[in-house]
Amino acid sequence: MTPPPDDTLDEIRLDAAASDPAALKWMVGAPPPSERLIRFGDSSFARFPRTRWSFAHMRQLMPTSVVPREDAPVVALPRRDRDDLEAVIFQTLGSRIRMTWAESLAANFTDGVLVLHRGHIVYERYFGVLTPHTQHIAFSVTKSFVATLAAVLIHEGVLDEHATIASYLPELADGGYADATIRQLLDMTAGIDYVEDYTDDTSSIWSLSRAGGFRPRPSGYSGPDTFYDYVQTLQKASGHGERFAYKTVNTDTLGWVLRRVTGRTVSELLRHYFWSRLGVEQDAYFTVDSTGVEFAGGGLNLTLRDMARFGEMMRLGGRVNGQQIVPAIVIDDISHGGNHDHFALAGYALLPGWSYRTMWWVTHNDHGAYTARGIHGQGIYVDPVAEMVIARFASHPLGANANLDPTSLPAYHALAQHLMAFDC
Amino acid sequence: MTPPPDDTLDEIRLDAAASDPAALKWMVGAPPPSERLIRFGDSSFARFPRTRWSFAHMRQLMPTSVVPREDAPVVALPRRDRDDLEAVIFQTLGSRIRMTWAESLAANFTDGVLVLHRGHIVYERYFGVLTPHTQHIAFSVTKSFVATLAAVLIHEGVLDEHATIASYLPELADGGYADATIRQLLDMTAGIDYVEDYTDDTSSIWSLSRAGGFRPRPSGYSGPDTFYDYVQTLQKASGHGERFAYKTVNTDTLGWVLRRVTGRTVSELLRHYFWSRLGVEQDAYFTVDSTGVEFAGGGLNLTLRDMARFGEMMRLGGRVNGQQIVPAIVIDDISHGGNHDHFALAGYALLPGWSYRTMWWVTHNDHGAYTARGIHGQGIYVDPVAEMVIARFASHPLGANANLDPTSLPAYHALAQHLMAFDC
Repeated sequence: MTPPPDDTLDEIRLDAAASDPAALKWMVGAPPPSERLIRFGDSSFARFPRTRWSFAHMRQLMPTSVVPREDAPVVALPRRDRDDLEAVIFQTLGSRIRMTWAESLAANFTDGVLVLHRGHIVYERYFGVLTPHTQHIAFSVTKSFVATLAAVLIHEGVLDEHATIASYLPELADGGYADATIRQLLDMTAGIDYVEDYTDDTSSIWSLSRAGGFRPRPSGYSGPDTFYDYVQTLQKASGHGERFAYKTVNTDTLGWVLRRVTGRTVSELLRHYFWSRLGVEQDAYFTVDSTGVEFAGGGLNLTLRDMARFGEMMRLGGRVNGQQIVPAIVIDDISHGGNHDHFALAGYALLPGWSYRTMWWVTHNDHGAYTARGIHGQGIYVDPVAEMVIARFASHPLGANANLDPTSLPAYHALAQHLMAFDC
Repeated sequence: MTPPPDDTLDEIRLDAAASDPAALKWMVGAPPPSERLIRFGDSSFARFPRTRWSFAHMRQLMPTSVVPREDAPVVALPRRDRDDLEAVIFQTLGSRIRMTWAESLAANFTDGVLVLHRGHIVYERYFGVLTPHTQHIAFSVTKSFVATLAAVLIHEGVLDEHATIASYLPELADGGYADATIRQLLDMTAGIDYVEDYTDDTSSIWSLSRAGGFRPRPSGYSGPDTFYDYVQTLQKASGHGERFAYKTVNTDTLGWVLRRVTGRTVSELLRHYFWSRLGVEQDAYFTVDSTGVEFAGGGLNLTLRDMARFGEMMRLGGRVNGQQIVPAIVIDDISHGGNHDHFALAGYALLPGWSYRTMWWVTHNDHGAYTARGIHGQGIYVDPVAEMVIARFASHPLGANANLDPTSLPAYHALAQHLMAFDC
């Protein structure tokens, strides 16, 4: 979601206060004047600072499919507010500036953040146009939902992690994915010819987005028409299973497999396995392509509290509200992480010693924390030792976690230490 | 929503059982084979029998804005099932065939129907792909929601029913609506040059739909880009306030006025006045144009139970769940009906003696029934004497109530008489 070249540097330089979408009155007016209008077709929705409004209004910009709450009982999150968290101090990564938790929220263009400690809401804040009842796009946090679902299906024997993609999707028998395994998709080690560079307009991620209806198409567009069409264009670049390389399309291919194997859409699967059992407050929804296929790699929209509920379920070993929603062994496997050598080859300077497993990022820190991460600052951070879960939505102007990690990862760890030290 | 010319007569002739969207497996498959695919861009979504699926999946086909339930408490509708209703017999209008209530449901391609008697659910059935938790498009029943809202604002003094459209929307000072009044919009007596003929591809309703993103645009389209752009193209055809002439665009113009006067979107107004107070179970949503403007004339999607709740609120004089949601005087005014001479000029052969008031259809029968009506069989039928409310969603292949009235209106009245005679 990098701003297109026609954005001015002035706009990019707006800070959180100056880019407050409520203050900028996006879409206010009858009709809004052109300078306050946000549309899909002209790509304005994808440009900062408009993103601070768009990310909380995706359904108004494109077609979506619902992950319905139906009539499942809401399980309220108990509240024990801890205003003392505001003043918790940490040192930023790299530059080692001292910053408070409260200051970090603006630094990260936070739209909403919620901290659970031992299952209680100890901190919850909303900024701009986000509310407790409003869905925000989770971007790649979506992957962790979809892959956890896949891991449940593997545990149930519905899916074989060692089987090849072509064994499920014969359409890909001649493509780059043919001999990759489900596990290689889950751990992002498929050696597919696909580049995820948000700063390059010709990067594969934008071709995927145009195919999937997530970006407008230029006039005369003759590229792939759907997510599945796009997946079929991909060739092999290197051996599978050799290194971690983050590629959103892996999750869309996984979503295709899940749908083929179960006969149900990804939305229906999320409803069945998670949304009907987590005690959620609101529907979630996926952006979809022109044939109704969910953007499994990044299109999930949900409320902050419901995202936190998913994290809390993970923290509790899969058991919440009297039900084992995800087998404990599945969560153990995720929290123990993936192949360190494979991860190191990707060269994430800010994430030394980390690994990636089943589309979760594993810190291997002394708290055993692991996290779901989405572009522009979306995240779920699970700290088992501190019994803490953080859920965050954000709309940082730049599309890379490297811009957010310095003011996020140490802040999360400082909160964890504070909560362990000062138990109110 | 008349089927385009490329539909075969065979498809149009499918009955309710043969067109069952679950049996036809629309959108089933990974991906669905082309013959089961339903898309927006090729207009397939608008063709029967695909409509039996599309009408319950509008959000998957186009952008939408939410009318959120938020955390308003759900007020459950108490249940007292009355299976005896199935066998209630009535005579169809015109041909005077004897038919049972149960038979009428198939005759009308009913997707869902709910009967409330004294506030209890006495009958509730779903067909095809509709469920109690699924929103269905209400088409012109939308108008009754929006106009009732307008009537509340008139009562509150926010809006003046005698003021002209141009006094609120100076943009229309040179157009056909300039000297029409709010009341003339509400009662559909604005003499605007606009034709609502669903069987004619060149009819104004399709131009409105293309402008509002409710129908795909042909390549090279250079017509109006939004609902508001379209409204500004309209000229005057005759004097205002002289006769009833049903024109969907009147409600979209009304929606524009409401937004201008209140500074809030139609979705926000519906949330504030109705959705936060009716005890609804689910979010509702509007289809929107490319600038986020709601299709006020026909784009509301909601669940059957929530539509029934709105009807029950009307039946109870505006007071439900301990709150006066709509002033009783507003509902009195609606139920007493509009100008009979104006209505008679429209020549509805099946609706003798009826009138139209504030976008409700008033029967003036001996029960004082009035109804909200939408194309393809959507409806709310309020019978004050029988203390009965019926809500119905349907997907009749033909787009005119004249095709549904013969097997609907006498069926509703027969149910009312039965419920009064046999009080269980």
